[in-house]
Amino acid sequence: MPEASANIGVVGLAVMGSNLARNLASREGNTVAVFNRSRSKTDELVAAHPEAEFVPAFSYEEFAASLQKPRTAIIMVKAGAGTDAVIDALTGVFEPGDIIVDGGNALFTDTIRREKAVRATGINFVGAGISGGEEGALTGPSIMPGGSDESWVTLGPILRSIAAVAEGEPCVTHVGHDGAGHFVKMVHNGIEYADMQLIAEAYDLIRRGTSKTPAEIADVFAEWNRGELESYLIEITAEVLRQTDAATGLPLVDVILDQAGAKGTGAWTVQTALNLGVPVSGIAEAVFARSLSSHPEQRAVSRDLPGAEEDLEVEDADAFIEDVRLALYASKIVAYSQGFDEIRAGAAAYDWTIDLGAIAKIWRGGCIIRAQFLNRISDAYQTTPDLPVLLTAPYFVDALTRAQGAWRRIVATAAASGIPAPAFSSSLAYYDGLRAERLPAALIQGQRDFFGAHTYQRTDKPRTFHTQWSGDRTEVEAEDTH
Amino acid sequence: MPEASANIGVVGLAVMGSNLARNLASREGNTVAVFNRSRSKTDELVAAHPEAEFVPAFSYEEFAASLQKPRTAIIMVKAGAGTDAVIDALTGVFEPGDIIVDGGNALFTDTIRREKAVRATGINFVGAGISGGEEGALTGPSIMPGGSDESWVTLGPILRSIAAVAEGEPCVTHVGHDGAGHFVKMVHNGIEYADMQLIAEAYDLIRRGTSKTPAEIADVFAEWNRGELESYLIEITAEVLRQTDAATGLPLVDVILDQAGAKGTGAWTVQTALNLGVPVSGIAEAVFARSLSSHPEQRAVSRDLPGAEEDLEVEDADAFIEDVRLALYASKIVAYSQGFDEIRAGAAAYDWTIDLGAIAKIWRGGCIIRAQFLNRISDAYQTTPDLPVLLTAPYFVDALTRAQGAWRRIVATAAASGIPAPAFSSSLAYYDGLRAERLPAALIQGQRDFFGAHTYQRTDKPRTFHTQWSGDRTEVEAEDTH
Repeated sequence: MPEASANIGVVGLAVMGSNLARNLASREGNTVAVFNRSRSKTDELVAAHPEAEFVPAFSYEEFAASLQKPRTAIIMVKAGAGTDAVIDALTGVFEPGDIIVDGGNALFTDTIRREKAVRATGINFVGAGISGGEEGALTGPSIMPGGSDESWVTLGPILRSIAAVAEGEPCVTHVGHDGAGHFVKMVHNGIEYADMQLIAEAYDLIRRGTSKTPAEIADVFAEWNRGELESYLIEITAEVLRQTDAATGLPLVDVILDQAGAKGTGAWTVQTALNLGVPVSGIAEAVFARSLSSHPEQRAVSRDLPGAEEDLEVEDADAFIEDVRLALYASKIVAYSQGFDEIRAGAAAYDWTIDLGAIAKIWRGGCIIRAQFLNRISDAYQTTPDLPVLLTAPYFVDALTRAQGAWRRIVATAAASGIPAPAFSSSLAYYDGLRAERLPAALIQGQRDFFGAHTYQRTDKPRTFHTQWSGDRTEVEAEDTH
Repeated sequence: MPEASANIGVVGLAVMGSNLARNLASREGNTVAVFNRSRSKTDELVAAHPEAEFVPAFSYEEFAASLQKPRTAIIMVKAGAGTDAVIDALTGVFEPGDIIVDGGNALFTDTIRREKAVRATGINFVGAGISGGEEGALTGPSIMPGGSDESWVTLGPILRSIAAVAEGEPCVTHVGHDGAGHFVKMVHNGIEYADMQLIAEAYDLIRRGTSKTPAEIADVFAEWNRGELESYLIEITAEVLRQTDAATGLPLVDVILDQAGAKGTGAWTVQTALNLGVPVSGIAEAVFARSLSSHPEQRAVSRDLPGAEEDLEVEDADAFIEDVRLALYASKIVAYSQGFDEIRAGAAAYDWTIDLGAIAKIWRGGCIIRAQFLNRISDAYQTTPDLPVLLTAPYFVDALTRAQGAWRRIVATAAASGIPAPAFSSSLAYYDGLRAERLPAALIQGQRDFFGAHTYQRTDKPRTFHTQWSGDRTEVEAEDTH
């Protein structure tokens, strides 16, 4: 058995795991034990990176023996049954007080279940969302750990050592107990879906509404990246649009098949929001836009459906592009507001204490949605920690005041000229619904009472009522089955 | 023990169960055994309805003994753990070949699980969606049974005897095996959410855009109910809008609190669609509109958000109302098309043989979304059973051709004047997405390849590719991890 020389271990040495192990090894004070089910991956990693001075292990027993106490191990395997198998193996060789971290993309309800089961053994279990892809894992990801306060004492310094740094602060915080970390990572991905869809709609509008080529639109995005839209996604949009396909000489974006894939975390975000009663319509439209794009057989039979009488003809391209920019910014504010609303509701439902401002801060670096913009969100929650709706913070109200005229013009233009803008228009409808003095939900309550005796409440007094629709149509007070 | 005199039994005698039992008893040839956990409900029902000649039972053993073989019992209890308890009790006293029907609103995956467990005992288990509320249960509901072919031989005549009748045909069909019935009932409810939200948006637009009172708008809906929009929901909308509140003298719709409730089947429809990869954006927007309405604390802080510069001012009210009518009709076509798409996808995923035209037919009577319109859907599937997208059937293409100018005007008007129309605008965006020659999903694929090496496909050749974005930006063929 080896001596206990490592302060942290990594199980699962595919690209994400290897890169995270290398990142850990590169930081002052860390010695990293590594283990993989098949021995060859371990041998390869150790041979390829002598500078990392990895401590290789070839059994779970060896792995446990190589770790100082409290033993701390990060599991980096594909989410699912494999994770449970590794957890079982580690709980067999670890001791009370040790720490098992799942760094994969687990569904937060699985993490809650696993944390409860592992906790019963006295071992700490931490579900940690890690964002930033392969490169982030190597150079500095944004990390969203859940789990116990006890685990954070040991884990905090280690994760801070490898996280991305934004404005001097490491992009990691103890999100909350048990599944809170994976929950927040899930919503991060949901917001990412919305952000990408909004950018795609902005591109499509400019492409169809002006004579600009993809390379010229790349310049537009590069310009936007110097303003309030500054973000990694805007930056790489410019890169993608500027790329020429070597084989055909065409813009790459015109050669890529227009069927968007998805890995499931966007759908989870929407499904969870439905359970929580949180309207994340912008994220839902983004997920659905991808699934619509991926049904070629349906699109093939629909191409001849009648379209708008007039194609979009923009007279002043610069003014139009500025309108699109403002519409994108306003819609983005809605998407983030909806996402933070889901985190707020999730925290309440699962009894997590989550500092929403701290979440915004750790997303400023390392992750896909990293952006200056997140400082504004952090500021908003710092000023008003219990803000009921993010977009009502003064900074965002100012931005929406500036943007809303353009936003309305763009949504109206898209509708009139037959350009699909589901996320732009959904965001605006959400905004107008939120600020409505009265909503026609009252009619819906009337309908529900008519056909199902579901009862309704009144604006002028408490309690619950039912109109006897199939009788004499008088109103009676109902048992509260609302 | 009683003699086996009944051909059908009902377990659970709350309003829905009592009404269904009375409906059964009123039909030629049926003798109905009734059982309830608490004896008093059974006694009350039997005493109140001597004409029904119920056969009361006061234990599961008595209940089983009172039924002719194959014993057939319909469970009418609140969906959830109670259902499992009744199933367990019945399987204890029933024999192979007998039939247990769950007539509650079970989640179809629970029905699949239960059917599998009960089938192992040789007893048939049938999950049957029953729509029409309390009144429908009494006078004739629309019934959507799943389960085995064997069970249908006995069950078919009984259910046909009590179902609603539309154009001479009973509103019941054997939907498909195991959970197919509850699946279809779930989608029925999802469509109902969308239909109600669309009607609410139409009302709101007319209310805000014209000087008409709710009673005058009731006349508009009554008029619409004589045309292609003819349906139960349009009919009762007129009734609700015409109602005056006795206490205040105000229109009732202005007195009802504008916070819409929900029972969960709409959310299930969207969650299931997300699992199936089916874009049901109109249903999702309807579910989210209800949840948005039900957050008074968020709405309270949002009422002062900046709105459109100009309020809606309609010059020609009649022309505007006709535009709204056409927008409603077009959006409704989208909602039903999305719902049937989900049934199509569900049948493929769960290996059910579902006759989509027959589903449209059994919804023509008894249920909440009953409408003439469903004949057009039935026709479409009769002509083309494997139609990939319902709205591409010639009848609907004609309707959309007539409607789309108005639809675009209404969505644009709503956006410009700050009136929330999430379902109208989402439906239009879906329609324009479906018929788009190219979608900006290609850009999304480019972004995903950039930040996560998710790879993309090309329009000009098969296989999967990756651009080495952080290297020399050449394209390489990828392992197919798309």
